[in-house]
Amino acid sequence: MPNYILNNENAILYECGYTCDNALFLRLNGAGYLITDARYDIEARELVNGGVSVICASDLQSAARGLLRKLKIKRLEFDPASFSVASFEALSKKSKASFKPVINLSQKMREVKDAFALLKLKHSAKVGKECFRQMAEYISLQGDGKTEKELHKKAVEIFSDYGDRELSFNPILAINKNAAKAHALPSNERLKMGDLVLLDAGVRIDGYCSDCTRTAEFNESFSFDKAQSFKDPKKQEIYNLVLSAQKAAIEAIKPGIKASEVDAVARNVIAKAGYDRQFFHSTGHGVGLDIHELPRISKASNTVLKEGMVFSVEPGVYIEGEFGVRIEDVVVVTKTGCEIL
Amino acid sequence: MPNYILNNENAILYECGYTCDNALFLRLNGAGYLITDARYDIEARELVNGGVSVICASDLQSAARGLLRKLKIKRLEFDPASFSVASFEALSKKSKASFKPVINLSQKMREVKDAFALLKLKHSAKVGKECFRQMAEYISLQGDGKTEKELHKKAVEIFSDYGDRELSFNPILAINKNAAKAHALPSNERLKMGDLVLLDAGVRIDGYCSDCTRTAEFNESFSFDKAQSFKDPKKQEIYNLVLSAQKAAIEAIKPGIKASEVDAVARNVIAKAGYDRQFFHSTGHGVGLDIHELPRISKASNTVLKEGMVFSVEPGVYIEGEFGVRIEDVVVVTKTGCEIL
Repeated sequence: MPNYILNNENAILYECGYTCDNALFLRLNGAGYLITDARYDIEARELVNGGVSVICASDLQSAARGLLRKLKIKRLEFDPASFSVASFEALSKKSKASFKPVINLSQKMREVKDAFALLKLKHSAKVGKECFRQMAEYISLQGDGKTEKELHKKAVEIFSDYGDRELSFNPILAINKNAAKAHALPSNERLKMGDLVLLDAGVRIDGYCSDCTRTAEFNESFSFDKAQSFKDPKKQEIYNLVLSAQKAAIEAIKPGIKASEVDAVARNVIAKAGYDRQFFHSTGHGVGLDIHELPRISKASNTVLKEGMVFSVEPGVYIEGEFGVRIEDVVVVTKTGCEIL
Repeated sequence: MPNYILNNENAILYECGYTCDNALFLRLNGAGYLITDARYDIEARELVNGGVSVICASDLQSAARGLLRKLKIKRLEFDPASFSVASFEALSKKSKASFKPVINLSQKMREVKDAFALLKLKHSAKVGKECFRQMAEYISLQGDGKTEKELHKKAVEIFSDYGDRELSFNPILAINKNAAKAHALPSNERLKMGDLVLLDAGVRIDGYCSDCTRTAEFNESFSFDKAQSFKDPKKQEIYNLVLSAQKAAIEAIKPGIKASEVDAVARNVIAKAGYDRQFFHSTGHGVGLDIHELPRISKASNTVLKEGMVFSVEPGVYIEGEFGVRIEDVVVVTKTGCEIL
């Protein structure tokens, strides 16, 4: 195992089960070291696992250099996307060790999920699904006439269990033309019968994220099920198109296939119908401790899928000024294909 | 005015009144440029002020390099604490301009608050105070037997106005020995009569933060006032000590004095009573768009205070395994002294 140093909160959580906003983690000759300041020292000592040593210091970089000196470490890896220019300089300038840049160092180690991570991701996905059910029930019974802002606030309440749980990210709740913006902020537009509703939301439990998007029509039998009937034939056409793109991509997933091929499968379905320019983002992203992590399911990705990788499959078509449709599930690659979490 | 480039969300908000999580801001020959991607382009155009030009690009660094080339910019400043090693390399490697590192570039520009920032900070402080009053009322009437987690959740609700307002940071609500951890996570410990309660919390309105800490005894006349009576003489002794350290520091503040002297004043009061090792953090930090910004009120700070600087004064004494006391207010330096916001 190579030596390495991490400063990202989720990367550190993965290594030792504890994290805070001012810490460095080092893996040196196989042993783990967490360096943090006095504010976090007691809790860190109580909560770290895996035999990690906690070092309390006011200057984390200097303590890390001291440790490298003491253990006579010659070289170690670091993530240049994670360290700032200044903190890397403080760390490396006076050190005799050589630092090797490895982009996405921690995400690469976490790309294939272990049994613990999978268990946690499945649990988060299950809770996330229940939140979608609750949100559908709320919209069904009380949604009529509510603004996007009000519905968004209710989504925050439900997905955060009224403040007791973390969110994966700020939920996106968008009606009609606002759903055509991939990252819409909620407006004062009011929900009425026949409107299209897009909800993209997830929960974060023990650090592990869920992520799901559903698009639905607000009518008498409102639900976030994948089977949807839209009165407007154009909406129905686009919805069916996105759903079939997602289905085709999910069916293509198995160990040994390239992530870029999965992206191409979804993209080709949409391109054949003439909407390729309206699908302007990648097909998916890894989900774990970070809401966006490896693998990327995109044109440019060189990743070959492996059993245990977990990522979203979320094609979308966005008709500016009218509406947008996105359908998203998170899957885990199995021995022979994949399974929706 | 020197040319500069910024990538920090709050630094960009300060420059143009709009910000998002994927943007660069450049000030070149006095003119402002915001570079962001297609997801934020429409909103950015609607919301930027000060005649800033919005540039939409998928590769922000490459667009910035193009702009530098087009305007024939020879040199510009950047903050090495803000740019990652990887993003700075992407920006500078292929550019002919020379990049001068200036630590805390934006925070330095914001260190002395203008009238607008002061108005906003005063408003946030006022709302924050009202939240402390509401939280005291809740604890007084319904706190008995509630867990730290339940009280923490109520603090989140009150300070976030039940989800309608941003928090400055995740509030710290700690009882007894948990208050000895400067940054405690809430536990299942239940509040009972005679317990010590520490609350550190703030609101964020239009980007500007409030920050306040109070320590109090849970008894029949519970409040977060600074005047507190503790039954336990040791708690009372420590409380009085911290309060007098805070008072002495506040009285020492005026333009022309060093930030390190203010720190020394608070530290000396506590050291004389033999608790210097139990006051293990600095006396204060600047408060503005960032919850922690310049000036630092610490031993190591070289800052000389100026009228219009805004920072916290928050000495604390932490007795591990027993309890902790911290008292914090935010002040603005005036012509002749300072004023508590």
